[in-house]
Amino acid sequence: MKKEVLYVKIASIIEEQIVNGTLKLGEKLPSIRTVQKMYHVSINTVKQAFLELESKSLINSRPRLGYYVSKTSQRRFSLPSVGMLSSSDGEKQPEDLIDKVYNSLKNKEVTQFSLGVPAQSMLPIAKLNKGVIHMIRKLDDGGTSYEPAQGSVNLRRSVAKWSMEFEGQLTEDDLVTTSGAMNAIFNCLLAVTKPGDTIAIETPVYFGTIQVAKSLGLQVIEIPAHPLTGIDMDALRKYLPRINVCCFTANFSNPLGSLMPEDHKIQLVKLLTEHNIPLIEDDLYGNLYFGATRPKPCKAYDEEGIVMWCGSFSKTLAPGYRVGWVAPGKFKSKIIRQKLLQTISTPILYQEVIADFMEHGRYDHHLHQFRNKLYANCLQYQQAIEEYFPDNTKIGQPQGGFVLWLELDKRVDTAALYDTAMRHQISFAPGRMFTLQDRYHNCMRLNFALGWNERIYADLKCLGKIVKNAF
Amino acid sequence: MKKEVLYVKIASIIEEQIVNGTLKLGEKLPSIRTVQKMYHVSINTVKQAFLELESKSLINSRPRLGYYVSKTSQRRFSLPSVGMLSSSDGEKQPEDLIDKVYNSLKNKEVTQFSLGVPAQSMLPIAKLNKGVIHMIRKLDDGGTSYEPAQGSVNLRRSVAKWSMEFEGQLTEDDLVTTSGAMNAIFNCLLAVTKPGDTIAIETPVYFGTIQVAKSLGLQVIEIPAHPLTGIDMDALRKYLPRINVCCFTANFSNPLGSLMPEDHKIQLVKLLTEHNIPLIEDDLYGNLYFGATRPKPCKAYDEEGIVMWCGSFSKTLAPGYRVGWVAPGKFKSKIIRQKLLQTISTPILYQEVIADFMEHGRYDHHLHQFRNKLYANCLQYQQAIEEYFPDNTKIGQPQGGFVLWLELDKRVDTAALYDTAMRHQISFAPGRMFTLQDRYHNCMRLNFALGWNERIYADLKCLGKIVKNAF
Repeated sequence: MKKEVLYVKIASIIEEQIVNGTLKLGEKLPSIRTVQKMYHVSINTVKQAFLELESKSLINSRPRLGYYVSKTSQRRFSLPSVGMLSSSDGEKQPEDLIDKVYNSLKNKEVTQFSLGVPAQSMLPIAKLNKGVIHMIRKLDDGGTSYEPAQGSVNLRRSVAKWSMEFEGQLTEDDLVTTSGAMNAIFNCLLAVTKPGDTIAIETPVYFGTIQVAKSLGLQVIEIPAHPLTGIDMDALRKYLPRINVCCFTANFSNPLGSLMPEDHKIQLVKLLTEHNIPLIEDDLYGNLYFGATRPKPCKAYDEEGIVMWCGSFSKTLAPGYRVGWVAPGKFKSKIIRQKLLQTISTPILYQEVIADFMEHGRYDHHLHQFRNKLYANCLQYQQAIEEYFPDNTKIGQPQGGFVLWLELDKRVDTAALYDTAMRHQISFAPGRMFTLQDRYHNCMRLNFALGWNERIYADLKCLGKIVKNAF
Repeated sequence: MKKEVLYVKIASIIEEQIVNGTLKLGEKLPSIRTVQKMYHVSINTVKQAFLELESKSLINSRPRLGYYVSKTSQRRFSLPSVGMLSSSDGEKQPEDLIDKVYNSLKNKEVTQFSLGVPAQSMLPIAKLNKGVIHMIRKLDDGGTSYEPAQGSVNLRRSVAKWSMEFEGQLTEDDLVTTSGAMNAIFNCLLAVTKPGDTIAIETPVYFGTIQVAKSLGLQVIEIPAHPLTGIDMDALRKYLPRINVCCFTANFSNPLGSLMPEDHKIQLVKLLTEHNIPLIEDDLYGNLYFGATRPKPCKAYDEEGIVMWCGSFSKTLAPGYRVGWVAPGKFKSKIIRQKLLQTISTPILYQEVIADFMEHGRYDHHLHQFRNKLYANCLQYQQAIEEYFPDNTKIGQPQGGFVLWLELDKRVDTAALYDTAMRHQISFAPGRMFTLQDRYHNCMRLNFALGWNERIYADLKCLGKIVKNAF
């Protein structure tokens, strides 16, 4: 056999495996060395075979991780538009819409594309339950005593240790545990703002952030964010003199899934330090990266203690446990005092269960599997959407996390579409929820942390049909 | 035997049993009918014997409950003084003192007279642990999902059912669960005030209430409270036009242990309803009554929804679980929204464990035993204090709860005394913590929810000695 024939032959074997489903979408290919041994060929031959498959968009490479089956690596659909910069004039809270979407949660028959939480099937529930039973027997007071307001020292130590991976340089003493990331953000805002102050957020943005800012009487500036790289640094610079605090998600923003490049993070922290503006960093998707390594949070570049790094286990382990944390920098004592006044302490049991889970490698193991499932799901969703949605649909390209942002034809109103979809037992998050302005009417956010199956596939197909009928 | 001789004889037998410790302080005597049968005498003879013992202050009667051993029923020490009315001028937070006292909690060797929580030995920890293990297996998601922001429907139903005892007339829909009563109070204040508003509280008052009010930028008016009957209604009336919100503890205030008479409660609710002033009712000691029945909360008289009734299981079951509730009246939707924004939901597990505990009568059973222990402890403390403290000591007479307020000689500074006591491994709460004003320097609060033993007795004796040496 000639060399050309060899690599073509290997490529066609793998292509056949992809087509007949032996290798599934999002699945990792055997390593180059494994394929080399399997067919007794040279490494270069295998590389050429993989290049061939890549050129056909059947696989793609993830740096340092290897090759994955990906029929969508050559995207047909373009990225969503960048939102316009907007300050607080004429703003309006989409509270009724949010309430409506939340109410759909009660109906267990509905496919919950709307929620920002993983499906139960994606979580290690049995292992966590074992952890709870183990821990309730281990704690000599069964968790009935108050713990110090700063939170479980074991959990703080575990989070600090694990932050060393991305050069967080934190110690247990730098952290305060909270009732989830939302509680961390609420307390950060309460600590550094007063009513009438101005907060900068990215747009579109998680509706909870907008709502908590408004509930504290803050003016909101929505800064444009690129679907791939996040916050537009020039727009931010322009509005800086008016801003009292920033709240950004550098790693896998919600709903765009964007990831700020490292040099943007460095610039951002430098800029805000110079202007003495606190940055509340909502990093709750940070562990759900599709690349090879965990992206650093802005906190890693914070020298003066202006970054308040917020995280939680709600997106990765157990939303209902309500366990999160904040590394509040120079605002630490204020945050601890607020926690003491608001609730005295947080329940110890779940904090210890999670600390134990992390300490024994179970968290890492789970995250590894979870990330692979999410990446595969993301590709499945993108493929189904490219197949069944109108051709002028624009679609996000998340670098991590588990939400997908869609921009539909201008004539579509996703708030109206929501009612139609609910009649088909499908719930999604209409775009209007993610802004205080009169926009994103033709957008929607989909959660892809649901176990991929026929039902999900059929629901995406159905949703595409509903969209097609809407204009 | 003549009748006189008979009753004297029976009285002296019982007296001997009290003196030699067969019947212990705080213990319930056999019923009149039991004694009658035991000695084959008439009911009147037994009654006369009991009267004889009561006249010697050896026993006292508790309405509808029976007779209890009580050497202190004839008090030698008088009640503490009533605090002066004061508004916000020149106020100062005792934060440093509070931090100091909180820091003593870390030292497990210290007798914690300072804390407002029951000792572990007073709590049904083994039963609760069993409940946790049972529930984690029962919940199909292991408690990993978000629950609706209003909180566990099972717990709300249990609290509502049980509030029928005191004619609460609440339904599960009227209640919102919280992270303990402190969190309920914080959220009530956040819902009904804005910075600069004025809050009326009783004086002396639990320091947490003062601190949370100040943290929200409120002006504080301290209304005089009588050690037995609580809030001085005339003083309250006088200041009413300046007041935006009240936060009172009608049942067993902390630190006085006072109980508002029913007609005061009725007047209070009527008055505040007329002026449309919300009442935050901190009722977290309400179940720990020493009388025959649970006193009604003000909420029982609330027709217009102005009373926000706050309670918790922190004082009776498990402080560390952080489970409480509020019946927020007409402010319900605001409270639910706030909870959603601050923390999305509260952990489900402990709420279900407590609901189950209530549903199966275990809570009632525990409360019954707990109240008897507390009543006995209260008598033991009072007796030890009358024995070892200076004669001019004034001492509260709690009608329930588990804190005791002492007023010492004017020359004593309990903040300074605290350091001396800590050198003897004894912690108490100095009076200055319970006000924003320059007063109560010569007062202290003692927690009597500690298992009564030789160590506690010796520590009270030691504390008495320290006080005697202080002037």
